[in-house]
Amino acid sequence: MKPKNRVFIATSIDGFIADQDGKIDWLHDIPSAEGEDMGYAQFMAASDALVMGRNTFETVLGFDIPWPYEKPVFVLSNNLKTVPEQLQDRVQIVSGPLEEVLAGIHQQGYQQLYIDGGKCIQSFLAADLIDEMILTTIPVLLGSGIPLFGELEQKLKFDCRESKVYFDSVEQRHFVRKREI
Amino acid sequence: MKPKNRVFIATSIDGFIADQDGKIDWLHDIPSAEGEDMGYAQFMAASDALVMGRNTFETVLGFDIPWPYEKPVFVLSNNLKTVPEQLQDRVQIVSGPLEEVLAGIHQQGYQQLYIDGGKCIQSFLAADLIDEMILTTIPVLLGSGIPLFGELEQKLKFDCRESKVYFDSVEQRHFVRKREI
Repeated sequence: MKPKNRVFIATSIDGFIADQDGKIDWLHDIPSAEGEDMGYAQFMAASDALVMGRNTFETVLGFDIPWPYEKPVFVLSNNLKTVPEQLQDRVQIVSGPLEEVLAGIHQQGYQQLYIDGGKCIQSFLAADLIDEMILTTIPVLLGSGIPLFGELEQKLKFDCRESKVYFDSVEQRHFVRKREI
Repeated sequence: MKPKNRVFIATSIDGFIADQDGKIDWLHDIPSAEGEDMGYAQFMAASDALVMGRNTFETVLGFDIPWPYEKPVFVLSNNLKTVPEQLQDRVQIVSGPLEEVLAGIHQQGYQQLYIDGGKCIQSFLAADLIDEMILTTIPVLLGSGIPLFGELEQKLKFDCRESKVYFDSVEQRHFVRKREI
């Protein structure tokens, strides 16, 4: 299978991944049903490894829960030097140009990558290295916050291949990058 | 039927209604099929009148096409004083607090209102006066431009009731405002 970089993330209707205080409590302020994870487990099962930025890594560490990822995690950071000892066989710090980072990850045998975290996703999009985006819309307008998307030097075309409504409230879209041939 | 204020507008994936030069050519850079208007005619038929800002009004005037609206149009503007003579029986200029503007429009017998234009929609949302939003996503990331949504003093909850994919590419969501009882 061709290597792919895929995003699976939730935003508000106005495109924020966290509110202006960095909080994400509104993400969970939605209807839910036991056993309905809106495709997360299936997405994770189809991923070989995760790539995230330092902010996301430190946020997950701060949750005070057992490490939640079974798949290897690559943390993209120029500043982070070490990871907690109990995670050293599960987490690698990577840095440098994204193409080189990706080549290194592919060499380790991980091809289907879950790209996570706002800044990390923005870096991958700026380099046109995202192939698919599964965007879940939490149906709220926040008015301000931390945006998922950032500036780009060129516009990037996608196709929406599928959309679903969960709980008569939350919506999810599957975008696939449409590259000029 | 209860008066309603509804939005029907298209944005890029990153939430822009025009690019950084104010251009909207990318809106039309999508697959299309004859006779498929993605619900526009049905939406317009269910609307009694339009409310738009001065920018949108002047943009439509600048298109150099016959006036495109059969329904009455209310232009929300404190500065605009007159409309072209041939439109005087079709276009009214309104100003003042939105609640008063709406009361005046309702008194004329128009209850189901199509709220259009970025600033006008933002003003209505800021006053929590939007009941439904039908948002069409043109599947492109622009990276910059004129955003549909603006700042809000309070977050506004919606439910997504329906979503559709057109042309295996363009997606449309129907959000309904969820007010606390």
